[in-house]
Amino acid sequence: MKFYDCAIAPSPRRVRIFLAEKGLRIDTVQVDLMAGENLGSPFLAVNPRGIVPVLELDDGTRIDESVSICRYLEEIHPEPPLMGVDPKSRAIIDSRTRHMEWDGFLAVANAFRNSVAGFAKRGLPGITEEVPAIPDLVDRGHAGITRFFKLLERYLQDSEFVAGDRYTIADITALCVVDFAGWVKRSIPTEHARTLRWHEAVSSRPSAKA
Amino acid sequence: MKFYDCAIAPSPRRVRIFLAEKGLRIDTVQVDLMAGENLGSPFLAVNPRGIVPVLELDDGTRIDESVSICRYLEEIHPEPPLMGVDPKSRAIIDSRTRHMEWDGFLAVANAFRNSVAGFAKRGLPGITEEVPAIPDLVDRGHAGITRFFKLLERYLQDSEFVAGDRYTIADITALCVVDFAGWVKRSIPTEHARTLRWHEAVSSRPSAKA
Repeated sequence: MKFYDCAIAPSPRRVRIFLAEKGLRIDTVQVDLMAGENLGSPFLAVNPRGIVPVLELDDGTRIDESVSICRYLEEIHPEPPLMGVDPKSRAIIDSRTRHMEWDGFLAVANAFRNSVAGFAKRGLPGITEEVPAIPDLVDRGHAGITRFFKLLERYLQDSEFVAGDRYTIADITALCVVDFAGWVKRSIPTEHARTLRWHEAVSSRPSAKA
Repeated sequence: MKFYDCAIAPSPRRVRIFLAEKGLRIDTVQVDLMAGENLGSPFLAVNPRGIVPVLELDDGTRIDESVSICRYLEEIHPEPPLMGVDPKSRAIIDSRTRHMEWDGFLAVANAFRNSVAGFAKRGLPGITEEVPAIPDLVDRGHAGITRFFKLLERYLQDSEFVAGDRYTIADITALCVVDFAGWVKRSIPTEHARTLRWHEAVSSRPSAKA
């Protein structure tokens, strides 16, 4: 297998943490997003959508979505389980992971990509044509981050981890979103005690350095 | 089990089609999104994120994301398989489903919600506070729909269905996105012969009426 990664980017970090939690190592190719390498012909031949990460299997099949890559790895390396242990827990973990993406990741991405000069014509990832930044999305993004932090605190009041009593891909996703929010200078509100404690716990796992 | 639905909305339609393909019937509660019932206290007690669909299990557990609901149903009613038959096909179907969501559904939703007077203060679904519409998202959404149609045609040139040679949840998602695009007066470009043929085929399945 071969893993197309970008060491600074939040989406492939989800897979790197997942791999570390499984104790797996895979040959890795770094794609330089800052230099636009993802939008050049060689990488577009790997992923026409111009996005990392991609997992290339030995038969040439390419899986190009973080969670789908994790899903494949979970099936071929089931231990420790990071995506649930029965139909109900798998569904809940999947739904919470999606909340982290749509309510969290998308809000931070909107706040970030539409406020940074380097992305003035790259308002969406992986698209070779111009996509103008939309300044109003910065405010929408920041309001979304505030709601995301409230949602996360509520989940962590109900259970030790984001989707129950076990560390899962929902925690990995939440961690990557929280740290990505730092890029737009947002951090966990000081009154969110559960989230602060959770963040310290998941950040101190060796996998968080991946 | 109990299913919280809204008969006119594209997201719960994905689950309705999935149920029909499985030959399943579940007690259904209609939530009137046009009247804002999803933002009222009774429904917010069911789903604090104010979004349909929700599947409530007999033990009270609620699953509140379309794909996560389908994932649960797939596990307890495996036939016919709609989410893959082995680790690789499950990962590819999952990734294509995500492409339909992020490249398709999000583009149509941006074009729709930010252009309709009734949503002028409801730029995002399920949020009780005001979220002002952003007119620039209409153009970004329409450009995204054009790219989505190209992506779909490319996939359908490679295989009979969106994620291989078998009808799956990726087709269900794509169908719901294509029909949702009709809400902003966009339809499959006439030069996309494969997509037109696919759309006719999937629309003629009895499940498409669900």
